[in-house]
Amino acid sequence: MASSIGKIVRISIFGQSHSAGIGVVMEGVPAGKKIDLERLRAFLSRRAPGGMPWSTPRKEADLPEFLGGIVDGVTCGAPLAAVIRNTNTKSEDYDELRRIPRPGHADYTAQVKYGGAQDVSGGGHFSGRLTAPLCIAGGIALQLLEQEGVAVGAHIARIGAVCDARFDALRVTADGVRAPGSKAFPVIDDAAGEAMIAAIAEARAAGDSVGGVIECAAVGMPAGVGEPMFDGVEGALARMLFGVPAVKGVEFGAGFGAADLFGSQNNDSYRMENGRVALQSNNAGGILGGITNGAPVVVRAAFKPTPSISRPQMSVDMERGQNAELEVRGRHDPCVVVRAVPVVEAACALALYDLLLQSRSV
Amino acid sequence: MASSIGKIVRISIFGQSHSAGIGVVMEGVPAGKKIDLERLRAFLSRRAPGGMPWSTPRKEADLPEFLGGIVDGVTCGAPLAAVIRNTNTKSEDYDELRRIPRPGHADYTAQVKYGGAQDVSGGGHFSGRLTAPLCIAGGIALQLLEQEGVAVGAHIARIGAVCDARFDALRVTADGVRAPGSKAFPVIDDAAGEAMIAAIAEARAAGDSVGGVIECAAVGMPAGVGEPMFDGVEGALARMLFGVPAVKGVEFGAGFGAADLFGSQNNDSYRMENGRVALQSNNAGGILGGITNGAPVVVRAAFKPTPSISRPQMSVDMERGQNAELEVRGRHDPCVVVRAVPVVEAACALALYDLLLQSRSV
Amino acid sequence: MASSIGKIVRISIFGQSHSAGIGVVMEGVPAGKKIDLERLRAFLSRRAPGGMPWSTPRKEADLPEFLGGIVDGVTCGAPLAAVIRNTNTKSEDYDELRRIPRPGHADYTAQVKYGGAQDVSGGGHFSGRLTAPLCIAGGIALQLLEQEGVAVGAHIARIGAVCDARFDALRVTADGVRAPGSKAFPVIDDAAGEAMIAAIAEARAAGDSVGGVIECAAVGMPAGVGEPMFDGVEGALARMLFGVPAVKGVEFGAGFGAADLFGSQNNDSYRMENGRVALQSNNAGGILGGITNGAPVVVRAAFKPTPSISRPQMSVDMERGQNAELEVRGRHDPCVVVRAVPVVEAACALALYDLLLQSRSV
Amino acid sequence: MASSIGKIVRISIFGQSHSAGIGVVMEGVPAGKKIDLERLRAFLSRRAPGGMPWSTPRKEADLPEFLGGIVDGVTCGAPLAAVIRNTNTKSEDYDELRRIPRPGHADYTAQVKYGGAQDVSGGGHFSGRLTAPLCIAGGIALQLLEQEGVAVGAHIARIGAVCDARFDALRVTADGVRAPGSKAFPVIDDAAGEAMIAAIAEARAAGDSVGGVIECAAVGMPAGVGEPMFDGVEGALARMLFGVPAVKGVEFGAGFGAADLFGSQNNDSYRMENGRVALQSNNAGGILGGITNGAPVVVRAAFKPTPSISRPQMSVDMERGQNAELEVRGRHDPCVVVRAVPVVEAACALALYDLLLQSRSV
Repeated sequence: MASSIGKIVRISIFGQSHSAGIGVVMEGVPAGKKIDLERLRAFLSRRAPGGMPWSTPRKEADLPEFLGGIVDGVTCGAPLAAVIRNTNTKSEDYDELRRIPRPGHADYTAQVKYGGAQDVSGGGHFSGRLTAPLCIAGGIALQLLEQEGVAVGAHIARIGAVCDARFDALRVTADGVRAPGSKAFPVIDDAAGEAMIAAIAEARAAGDSVGGVIECAAVGMPAGVGEPMFDGVEGALARMLFGVPAVKGVEFGAGFGAADLFGSQNNDSYRMENGRVALQSNNAGGILGGITNGAPVVVRAAFKPTPSISRPQMSVDMERGQNAELEVRGRHDPCVVVRAVPVVEAACALALYDLLLQSRSV
Repeated sequence: MASSIGKIVRISIFGQSHSAGIGVVMEGVPAGKKIDLERLRAFLSRRAPGGMPWSTPRKEADLPEFLGGIVDGVTCGAPLAAVIRNTNTKSEDYDELRRIPRPGHADYTAQVKYGGAQDVSGGGHFSGRLTAPLCIAGGIALQLLEQEGVAVGAHIARIGAVCDARFDALRVTADGVRAPGSKAFPVIDDAAGEAMIAAIAEARAAGDSVGGVIECAAVGMPAGVGEPMFDGVEGALARMLFGVPAVKGVEFGAGFGAADLFGSQNNDSYRMENGRVALQSNNAGGILGGITNGAPVVVRAAFKPTPSISRPQMSVDMERGQNAELEVRGRHDPCVVVRAVPVVEAACALALYDLLLQSRSV
Repeated sequence: MASSIGKIVRISIFGQSHSAGIGVVMEGVPAGKKIDLERLRAFLSRRAPGGMPWSTPRKEADLPEFLGGIVDGVTCGAPLAAVIRNTNTKSEDYDELRRIPRPGHADYTAQVKYGGAQDVSGGGHFSGRLTAPLCIAGGIALQLLEQEGVAVGAHIARIGAVCDARFDALRVTADGVRAPGSKAFPVIDDAAGEAMIAAIAEARAAGDSVGGVIECAAVGMPAGVGEPMFDGVEGALARMLFGVPAVKGVEFGAGFGAADLFGSQNNDSYRMENGRVALQSNNAGGILGGITNGAPVVVRAAFKPTPSISRPQMSVDMERGQNAELEVRGRHDPCVVVRAVPVVEAACALALYDLLLQSRSV
Repeated sequence: MASSIGKIVRISIFGQSHSAGIGVVMEGVPAGKKIDLERLRAFLSRRAPGGMPWSTPRKEADLPEFLGGIVDGVTCGAPLAAVIRNTNTKSEDYDELRRIPRPGHADYTAQVKYGGAQDVSGGGHFSGRLTAPLCIAGGIALQLLEQEGVAVGAHIARIGAVCDARFDALRVTADGVRAPGSKAFPVIDDAAGEAMIAAIAEARAAGDSVGGVIECAAVGMPAGVGEPMFDGVEGALARMLFGVPAVKGVEFGAGFGAADLFGSQNNDSYRMENGRVALQSNNAGGILGGITNGAPVVVRAAFKPTPSISRPQMSVDMERGQNAELEVRGRHDPCVVVRAVPVVEAACALALYDLLLQSRSV
C-alpha cells in the first residue's frame, strides 16, 4: 500500500488503527513558516470523537508529537513528521471480522488483496482513524494558506434529507467560510443543524446510520492556480477527497446541477467593477479550464452512511464458505459526516496549498 | 503546462486546437499486445463531429498516425506515439477572444496564467479537441482491457431533465455495457434518446446549449485492484475524468444519492452463490476501501452545458478595461455530452488499465 | 517502456530507430519564452553524423517539426512536441540480430524482456538515435538556462588514454564552457584533439572502437538549487546522464579522485572577496549537501566504447541454441564520444533547468 | 525538502540529527512477507558507531520502533513506519556553525536555501545520521530480495591509495558478496584491510580524514529488470546512491575504466553453457540498455573524505562579513567509508527491489 499524495507538498500517511501509532510525513513545506501548535490541536479536536450524540463515546486525545521539521514552532525546511500513539485499542472486538466481512467496509476487498497477513484489527490502515494524521498535515496547510491570504472552511450541507443553507458561492468571505467550523455542530443555519441532530439520533436509536454531503469553500485563492487537463484544480481536489474513507461523490460549483442548466444560465459572465474583472455568478466553483479564476473555490463531497450499524446484516463466513448473520459490535458513529467536516477542510487545504506552490515554479 | 497522468501506463497529451498537430505518447504498454487499428478508428469516429443535429457541422477525420510503439499491429514495448494533423483550422474566428473572454471558457484564466503568449486560437491546449488524443490512448486501453476480460462502456444518463435508464449496477454484462456505444445516439432506452435529441434541438434553436450526465461501467474487473486512501480506484478515475473539459462532478455507485440512504439500505450484503461470495446489491459502485470488489465499477460524470452559445453574453474587454457584449461565432456543439461518451469510456479505460497493471507489481 | 523524466520540466521520448518517426514531448516550460529555432538546429547539427573520420557516413538532417507548444518562436505554455521523421532506414541490416545478440548491445536483454514483439530494427527504442529528441528538449533547455544567466558546455575530457585539459572548476567562464562546442572537434586543447582523432582513426582501421570521458560544466547556477538526499543535484544529473546510452560512470567535482585526497585537501574553504563569500577551490563540483553553492557545477560521464565493431565476435544463436560468430554490419561510429558531447550538454541542461524551476516553488 | 524516492517501493525519510527522532516510511512492500527483526538489528549495528579506531566514540543504539506495517514479524501490506529516538545529542557543539560554515559541509548551501530557520544542530536533515533510517528500509529490502533469491553485499574497495581485491564480476556468489559484511572491517583481502586501518589511524592522528570507494554487487538478479533510458537500472541505483551524503561518483562494471578499453575488449561476448546463454566477461556490470542481463550487478561509489576534521580551516563569518578560522569540534569519523558499507548495501537493495517489483507489473 501507498498512502501518499502531492507534488511539491507531499504527504505520506502511516499506521493502522491498532498498531503502535499512526502519523504523517509532510514534505515540501518551506522553511521559516510559523505553525501555531495550539491552533493545530484545537483543529484536531474538531475531528476527535467526544461523547456528542452524533459520535462514538470513545475518548481520544490524539495529540501529535512532532519528531522533525519544526523547531520552536517554526518549520526548518526538513520534512515534517508527526506521530500519534494508539492507546485505547480493543482488538478483541474485531476477531470475527477476518472471516465474516462487514457489508460496506473494506474487510472483503482487503482480504482478497492482502490475504491473511492484513491487519484487520480496528480496520487496520483502512480505518477512519487514519484521517487523524491527514488532519495534522491539513491543519498545517490551513495555517500556511491563511498566511497566503486564503481561508478554507466547510459545513454540513446535508444529512439525509435535511439541508443546510449553502455558502454564497460568489460573495462568501473568509469569516464566512470559517464560521461553521467554530460551532459544535458545523452548519450555517442552526435550525437545520437541530433537524440534522434529530435525524442522526433517530438513526442511532434504530441501530442504523445516515450519510450526508459536506460543502467546502476556499476564499482568497489567486487566479491562475492549476493547469488544464490532468493537473487541474478539480482533479487534485477530487483525488485527495476520494482518499477520505466513505466519500462517494465530488462536485464543483453547480456540479451535477449544471446538467440541468442551459449554457446561458450556467456561464458566469464578466463585468468590470472598480477597474477589475468581476464574475457575476460562480457556477464554475471558481475553476475554469482547471485553473482558478479568483472566485471562491467551491466543492462538495458526498459521504455514504457509516457502514458499521448495530442491526443484524447478511454476510458470509469466508472460512466455512457459508452464509452468516453479522452483528457489528464495538463503538461507532451513527454519522461520520459531522467529524468529517475538518477532514474535508484538511484535504482541500492540502491540495490547494500544493497547487499554489506548484503555480510559483513557472 | 503538463497534460500527463498515470503510474505504470502513463499518457502525455500534446498540441493545440490550431497547431500543426495534436497527439499522445502512451508509456508502459506491455510488448506483444495486438491492437486492432480498424476498431480503434471506429472508436475514434464515435467522438468525431459529423453533422448530427447535436453536433457541430465540422468534418474531422482525425485519423491518427502512429510514429512509434506499434509494428504490424502489435505493440513492441516502446512508448506508443500517435499524431493527428490539424487541417480544418479557422484561426480568424478567434482573434477577438484574446481581449474578450468567453464566459464559461478558460479564456480568462489562461490569460491570467499564461499571458499574451498563450495560443488562444481554437481554444489552444484547452480545446475539447484535445480529447481526440485521449481517445486514441483510451481506445487502445479499451482493447487491452478486453484482452484481460474487462468490458467498459458508457451511455448518456441524462440531458437536462431527460433521463435514460441506468445500467443494472449488479447484473450488467459485458454486452450490456457495450450496447449503447453501438448506437448513433448512445443510450439504453431509445425513447429517452429521442426526447434528449429533441431537448438538444430545442436548445440549439434558442442559440443555447445543455449539459448532462454520462454513466460508465466496467464489467469483469477482478477483485483486489486499487489501494486504500489516495491510490484508490475512485481517486484515479476521478482525476482522469476531471481532466476531460466540462466535467464538474464525479460519483461512484449510489454517489450523492448515498447521502439519502440509511446504512442498512446502502450496505451491499454478501451471500454465498455457487460456492462464491456474491454481492446482493452494488451501491458501492464496485469499490470498497478504494479496492475493487469484483462487482461492476460504476461511475457517473456530470458535464456542464457547452459554454459556447450563440446568444449574446456579457463580458469585458480586458485591453480597454470596459464592459463588452460578446457573440461567440464559430461552430460549436449545442451539447458536448453525446460526443463525450467515448471520451468517458477512454478516460475510464486508461485509469482502470493502469490500476490493473499496478496491482500486478505486488 | 517509459522514457520520461523530470518533475516540473518533464520530457517523454518516443519512437524507434526505424519507426515512422522519433520525437519528444516537453512539459512544464513556462509561456512567453523565446526559442531561437535556428540556434536549436545548429545545436542539433553538432550531434548529427556527417562524414567526419570519427563518425558514421550516414547523412541525417534530423530537423524537427514542432507540432505544438511554440507559436511564432515563442512558447505558449502548452507542452512542446517535436517530431523527426525517420527516412534513411535500412532494416535489412538488422534481421539476423533478433537471433544472434550483439555483445555490448541491448539485443539480448531486450529479447529477454520484450520477447519477439520488440522492434529490433536499427536498435529500436534502444538506439543512440533516440538521443536526437533528447537534444531537441535539451537544446531548448540550454536556451532557457541562458535566459536565466546559466551557461552549460562540455568537451571531450579523454578518448582512451589521450586526455584533454580540464575546465578550471573554480574560474571557468560562460564563454569558456561554450568554447569547445564551437569547434568541429570539441576539446579545450586542440593538440590533444589531434591525438584523439588519431586514436579514433587507428581503432577504426582495426575494425574496433574506443570509449572516453566527457566533462560538462554549468556556469552561473545560483546557490540554493537542489535539495538534500534524493532530490539533490547529483542524483538528478546522474539519472539523466545514465539515460544516455553507453554511459557507465558519472562523477562530480573531484569525483573518484576525491577518494585519494585527505579532508584537508578536498574541503573547499571560504574567503570573503569583495564582500561576498567566495570558494577557494571546487572539489565539490559546485554541490554541497545536494545543493548548488554558486560555483560551477562540474560533472564527468564515462562512455564505453561503441559496442558495434566490425571485427568478428563470439555470440550465440538463441533460436538454435548454439554458439555463433557474429560480424556486425552496417554503419557505426568508431567512437560515440564526439557526437555525445552535445547530448551530455542537453542532458545536463534539462536536469538543471528542472531543478532551477523546482527551487522557485518554495 | 523532500527525502523520498521510489516508484512501487517508495521511502520517505524524516527527522534531523538532534530532533526528537528520525525515521522512515516505506510504502509498497507486499503483505505477508516475513521480516526477521533480529537480523535487521544486526544489520543496523554494522552502521552504528562503536569505538572502533576508524569511527567516532559516540555510542548509539539506534534501535528502531515500528509504528505500523508489521504485525508479529510479518508485513501486513500497510506502509512500514519506523522511528529511532534521538537521545545522545549535544547541541552546544554546533552553535557557532550557523555563522561560520564548515568547508565541505552543507552549512553554507543550507543557509542560502533555508535561511535562519534551518535546523543546523548536528547537521539537521543533512546529517549522516539520516542514513540510519535509510538502513532500516534497506535492511528490509535486503531480506525481501533474499526471499527472491537475490544477494546484495559490499566491501571497501579502496581507502586513499590502499586497494582491496575486487569481486569477481562474473563468478562472485551469494556467499561471496555477503562475506565482507560479516567481518568487523568489511574487505575481501584482510591484509589490505590492515593497511586501510593503518591509513585511517594515520589520518586521525594528523587531525585529518580520508575518502574511499565502496564496491557493491547483487547476485541472482533475474535478466529483464529495468528499462531503457531514464528508468534503467544504472539511473535508479545512481540516484539512490547520490542520496547518500559524501558520495561524489558512481560507476557500473568497468565504469570509468571502460573509457580505456577497445570495444573488442569491453564487449562481453556470449557462449552457450549447459544449454543456457552465458556471458564470458562482465564489463557491463550486469546491465545492458538499462536492463539486467542475469550477470551480477556491480556498482562502485566514491566517497569524499569526511569534511569534519580537527585541523584549523579557513572559512568566513557570514554574520560579520569577514574571514574566520574554524576548528571543528565534536566527535567525527576520520573515515565514513567503513560505516558506509551497509548504507551502500541498503541503498542498492532498495533500488533493486523497487525495480524488481516494477518489472512484474507488465
